Amino acid sequence: MRLAELSERSGVPTATIKYYLREGLLQPGRRVTATQAEYDDEHLRRLRLVRALIQVGGIPVAAAREVITAITDDSLDHHMRLGAAVWAIPHGPEPDEGDLSTSAARRTADTLLERLGWGFGREVGAQSPAYRMLIAGIATMDRLGYPCDVEHLSLYARSAAELASVDLDLVEEYEGEEQQVEAAVALTVLYEPVLLSLRRLAQAEESHRRFG
Amino acid sequence: MRLAELSERSGVPTATIKYYLREGLLQPGRRVTATQAEYDDEHLRRLRLVRALIQVGGIPVAAAREVITAITDDSLDHHMRLGAAVWAIPHGPEPDEGDLSTSAARRTADTLLERLGWGFGREVGAQSPAYRMLIAGIATMDRLGYPCDVEHLSLYARSAAELASVDLDLVEEYEGEEQQVEAAVALTVLYEPVLLSLRRLAQAEESHRRFG
Repeated sequence: MRLAELSERSGVPTATIKYYLREGLLQPGRRVTATQAEYDDEHLRRLRLVRALIQVGGIPVAAAREVITAITDDSLDHHMRLGAAVWAIPHGPEPDEGDLSTSAARRTADTLLERLGWGFGREVGAQSPAYRMLIAGIATMDRLGYPCDVEHLSLYARSAAELASVDLDLVEEYEGEEQQVEAAVALTVLYEPVLLSLRRLAQAEESHRRFG
Repeated sequence: MRLAELSERSGVPTATIKYYLREGLLQPGRRVTATQAEYDDEHLRRLRLVRALIQVGGIPVAAAREVITAITDDSLDHHMRLGAAVWAIPHGPEPDEGDLSTSAARRTADTLLERLGWGFGREVGAQSPAYRMLIAGIATMDRLGYPCDVEHLSLYARSAAELASVDLDLVEEYEGEEQQVEAAVALTVLYEPVLLSLRRLAQAEESHRRFG
């Protein structure tokens, strides 16, 4: 398809598509004349993913490019590519290393991962954005007077593990390794607002049941 | 305690505390002289909550004031006060009412709530920010080519219900109705980054198990 059709089918304006092409977020089309290129379903899929990252995830263009690079890195095996791509999705604020709450939070997180038997998480530990995001979150709760301990965190982690299992089942429904990696990134980002809203609805329901 | 001590114990600069007082986010202290007021543990607690909302939740001052108003509204019973406060926490983007995906998403959400037996959610439906956030999330996934159906959503909702049960158990550990309402608001906001990071860690773990 030509640029105009790609724009129409993706709902992304042609000027934005050209910008994504310049920024390396979208692979170039197959050149057919000096001024025209041909695009296919892979471009359409990639465009949808880029929109998910930028519009829903609120991820800056440079960071989105890193995610895309990880997705298309043929030197990695499937698991590493999947991990590297989800890895590159930006997360919350970094832990404040000068703060006492941060060292305590790191101990709590390490105890938690050990207790859960999450060996992969322990192994990659310090380098993992999700691990640092967890530490920052625990430290913030502590500083604000709402400390959370390993017991409570384990309960949340158990639900998180169930969610991750559903996530991966969904990812496996996609055919092809690249599609699976793309889906893993997109579903990670797109399901976040859905999950947070379901938690609030479930809270209202549970609160109605207990106190209503 | 005086303003200086409240600042020291909360870690909030005195200028910020004065701003919160002017904006009605913090209840006034007990005036002891023309220029000095006395503050107590309730002020300390409220300050922590305001910081959780504004710093972690990224919630604008006006919206934080609405949450605080709901917390302190004596005309509501406990459940309603709890619901109203959590309700007032801002959420994601509103659903785009002009879009076909939105009407389809509303049908999906309604079927989901009915199937889950979440009668309270259905009843308050259209007015609930969490319900609208859910619809916006489902519609976005559909528009971006990652449609989610009631079956998949039910699986996420089941985990969300478990999370909500842990949340409410935590809330009930606080004594006093106002403390419980404050805790419900704070824990809703503060656990969001923790949950999202645990989900990503769990994904890495599960992916390692399946493909590693």
